[in-house]
Amino acid sequence: MKVHVEEFHVSTKAREEVVVVTDKVESIVARSGVRNGIALIYVPHATAIITANENEPGLKEDILNKLRSLFPRGAGYRHDEIDDNANAHLANLFVGFHLVMPVVDGRLRRGTWQEVMLVEMDGPRSRRSVIVVVLGE
Amino acid sequence: MKVHVEEFHVSTKAREEVVVVTDKVESIVARSGVRNGIALIYVPHATAIITANENEPGLKEDILNKLRSLFPRGAGYRHDEIDDNANAHLANLFVGFHLVMPVVDGRLRRGTWQEVMLVEMDGPRSRRSVIVVVLGE
Amino acid sequence: MKVHVEEFHVSTKAREEVVVVTDKVESIVARSGVRNGIALIYVPHATAIITANENEPGLKEDILNKLRSLFPRGAGYRHDEIDDNANAHLANLFVGFHLVMPVVDGRLRRGTWQEVMLVEMDGPRSRRSVIVVVLGE
Repeated sequence: MKVHVEEFHVSTKAREEVVVVTDKVESIVARSGVRNGIALIYVPHATAIITANENEPGLKEDILNKLRSLFPRGAGYRHDEIDDNANAHLANLFVGFHLVMPVVDGRLRRGTWQEVMLVEMDGPRSRRSVIVVVLGE
Repeated sequence: MKVHVEEFHVSTKAREEVVVVTDKVESIVARSGVRNGIALIYVPHATAIITANENEPGLKEDILNKLRSLFPRGAGYRHDEIDDNANAHLANLFVGFHLVMPVVDGRLRRGTWQEVMLVEMDGPRSRRSVIVVVLGE
Repeated sequence: MKVHVEEFHVSTKAREEVVVVTDKVESIVARSGVRNGIALIYVPHATAIITANENEPGLKEDILNKLRSLFPRGAGYRHDEIDDNANAHLANLFVGFHLVMPVVDGRLRRGTWQEVMLVEMDGPRSRRSVIVVVLGE
């Protein structure tokens, strides 16, 4: 049984942005030497999201638009009295900052339309962290 | 330490539908031989959901109704210019396609009101996949 | 490779409440002896939430307010014909009852603004369970 932990960083260029990171995660899975098991993909952040879905430009706009409509900026939040990003905290909490995927035959067992995505909700940031833990044999 | 990976398939009969799959997952946990650890239950799909909640007919309707009201079909999505299922993509992303549950004494350590459910959001489909990875000893 | 399973209980004092449980989870991770791996933090409940975010009083109000506005009580749910907590079931399903975090150097590898939180949605309850499974080496 192996445990492989690795971290990489992403810089974001806008307040809200979808960044596809599948290749970086697949490289870590390959380096781990794990053939069968799981991969935890995790952002140690309270205002960014990690998830997976289809890498289609229109859909990426739809995702950001839905996040903006469900969690609008500056909508009278108490947290905005000390910071201006309560909406990003809520998006992180409701959508997710942790993702566990199967590893089969040394690769993520993901669907055709599943690319791993970091969704920035409080950017731009020079250094968002993504931690990957691969467990298996 | 054991790693057990198994996949099963579900056919769905409506555009939107809740299908309870607890028994299939419990059978895989039993076959895995794992007594204590975790089970990852995963759909490699971008338009279906995996989750757990109470298997009560009224609540299953409430779940589908809430999904329809938060993610209405055909609400001017950009992705619908090339497909007609942006609402299902959003439901998958916001609710979830991965579920990790504890395994204790050879069974899922789930609550009385927790049945594992696949929620179809873009059916009917003849073959939705559910991948289960059981890790532990 | 080690597998450590431990459970603790939380009593809640209001219908809706955020309870920070980071210290209890960190103690379990320490007792597990796992240096590198993952921790599953799980509630075997269909009407409470487990998640992580910033432990700031204003934000905790914002979280409860957003849950109340997205999943209002008594909004004509079918499940309320037999119980009065459909809104809590929906909150649990949409936000989450399972959380997986990395363990690095014997501690949760969480961000500065990530405290583990149980969100009660159908309290008060004398005994909510939190199950922690630590896997790794």
